[in-house]
Amino acid sequence: MAGDIAEQPEVYARLLEPASIAAIAEVADLIARRRPRHVVLTARGTSDHAALYAAYLIEIRLGLPAALASPSTITLFGARPDLSQALVVGVSQSGGSPDLGEVLRVARAAGALTLAVTNVAGSPLAEAAELEIGLAAGHERAVAATKTYTAELLALLLLVEAVRAGGGRLPDDERAALAGLPDLAAQALAEPAAVDLADRYRFADRLVTTGRGYAYPTAREAALKLMETSYLAALAFSGADLLHGPLAMADPDVPVLAVVGEGPGGGAMRDVLGRLGERRADVVAISPSAVAGAAARIPVPKVDERYAPLLDILPLQQLALALALARGEDPDAPRGLRTVTSTL
Amino acid sequence: MAGDIAEQPEVYARLLEPASIAAIAEVADLIARRRPRHVVLTARGTSDHAALYAAYLIEIRLGLPAALASPSTITLFGARPDLSQALVVGVSQSGGSPDLGEVLRVARAAGALTLAVTNVAGSPLAEAAELEIGLAAGHERAVAATKTYTAELLALLLLVEAVRAGGGRLPDDERAALAGLPDLAAQALAEPAAVDLADRYRFADRLVTTGRGYAYPTAREAALKLMETSYLAALAFSGADLLHGPLAMADPDVPVLAVVGEGPGGGAMRDVLGRLGERRADVVAISPSAVAGAAARIPVPKVDERYAPLLDILPLQQLALALALARGEDPDAPRGLRTVTSTL
Repeated sequence: MAGDIAEQPEVYARLLEPASIAAIAEVADLIARRRPRHVVLTARGTSDHAALYAAYLIEIRLGLPAALASPSTITLFGARPDLSQALVVGVSQSGGSPDLGEVLRVARAAGALTLAVTNVAGSPLAEAAELEIGLAAGHERAVAATKTYTAELLALLLLVEAVRAGGGRLPDDERAALAGLPDLAAQALAEPAAVDLADRYRFADRLVTTGRGYAYPTAREAALKLMETSYLAALAFSGADLLHGPLAMADPDVPVLAVVGEGPGGGAMRDVLGRLGERRADVVAISPSAVAGAAARIPVPKVDERYAPLLDILPLQQLALALALARGEDPDAPRGLRTVTSTL
Repeated sequence: MAGDIAEQPEVYARLLEPASIAAIAEVADLIARRRPRHVVLTARGTSDHAALYAAYLIEIRLGLPAALASPSTITLFGARPDLSQALVVGVSQSGGSPDLGEVLRVARAAGALTLAVTNVAGSPLAEAAELEIGLAAGHERAVAATKTYTAELLALLLLVEAVRAGGGRLPDDERAALAGLPDLAAQALAEPAAVDLADRYRFADRLVTTGRGYAYPTAREAALKLMETSYLAALAFSGADLLHGPLAMADPDVPVLAVVGEGPGGGAMRDVLGRLGERRADVVAISPSAVAGAAARIPVPKVDERYAPLLDILPLQQLALALALARGEDPDAPRGLRTVTSTL
């Protein structure tokens, strides 16, 4: 897991090479020409969080309604929704779960434009789809996905920005911002604060993660990593949903990891942090700058919130790994899990 | 909270009166004539689970793609997705949260057909929408929503079935099945098993709930009720997502509440229950019949899985209430919460 985590700057650099950008732009060009009216994403586990990031990007950057599908309506209940005007995107590290392949097959038969985003070329998911984007992240050694998650994020970001550019060349400022990501990722990974925090959570048995907008997928993925490696009960909520009920659970004994960027999402977290403060919750902020009321902070590079998910998750992966080790667990072989999970 | 819970058979009976069915059929008729190509639902907290149930119904029963929206893309990031072919449904007990009203206003301006489902006539949400369905569930006294949740479920079921019938009269078998719901709800509430279980969870600090398909909203809502009233860390997963990571967290010390219906969703839970068995998890089944490997069972009436969410949640509400009382908490006034939660 440590090896997979450390490779992420390299994985970013590889996805940003001209050949890779051109391959994604080719897919984007086909999508731009087919003009889907809405986008349906389907994924499981970690990849579901990359799909959620893509849904935010697609709505905000492309002005297309985008949402995550429940595969079971199709795979278990035989639904055949009219997807003829949709782009349907399956996201999966292994491309091996039967339910996602089935969703893409049904969608394609209904006339949808279908796309598989996967790390395994020629996987069943890629076979089922009309279009394919490969992550080229290399073999993931640990069961808990890290580098394939961030590769999915970047591939989906490149795709959305290329569709926005009409399938053509990305604007220069976008290219410049993207080109800086490998170095920023290395910088985020070199920051020791997250690993130091493992001590703080050594005896925690539950934890809340929260963020809004682009930061919500980061909160979700951080919670999943902590569950997978350290067996904590880690509950992720959008900042807004946290106030609609689960806030009652927060007290000084429930640690909170809050992802607070600089932009509209981070701004909207201020109310959430205030309410958590009233409950005297123990808040650690993942943020590029000081956050009022936070007991500690994991500093992350200051970027537009749109890019932040590619950086903010990195120290949280390190935290999950360090916490598993501090607890005497084996993060490379979480109990009960398999690398390729087959669900119907 | 006990009073709100006990009223639910009555609330069902009221929604099933001819005048109420006719009012919903009128809305359905308008929807059927406008022929939306997809449905976007928006809600927070408990109502989000009713919206999730509706998304399953819409995909399975109407063959329309349906999904839940993240309000923040519109309210925080200024996204203006092209919703001109969508039906956009806001679901909210109070109809008072500014973000949902904003989503409906933006959707309406974009040419979407908009519908508010709310318990408060003339609420801001109802004002924002072109169409309105009132729940007539009466004032909800407790902060933790119970009768307005199940009223939302039934109103949305009636709406979907009426759209399926082309806005006309429901088929006789559907009418007969619906007419039986108030008695079945009373029967479910008279079953003592759930309240007896409060003892089992007296000292639990975390808990997992799970279900697939139509049962997944029940798992989500049960988890929220337990968080709101008893401050447990209650984690809800679709049975499929549970296998993609969080399963690692399950062990003999983490109680699992599994909603296992009789139908495709319950059938697909068998694999999940097997994997939970391998981890020696303590599983309590909410099910109309015996479930292999379950340590205990909360019996519920045997109905089609499509109707089960209207019954299965009832004993789980009772469990949340009983557990809060056993722990010396006040379920009517959960710490840190307000009846109308305003989020942007």
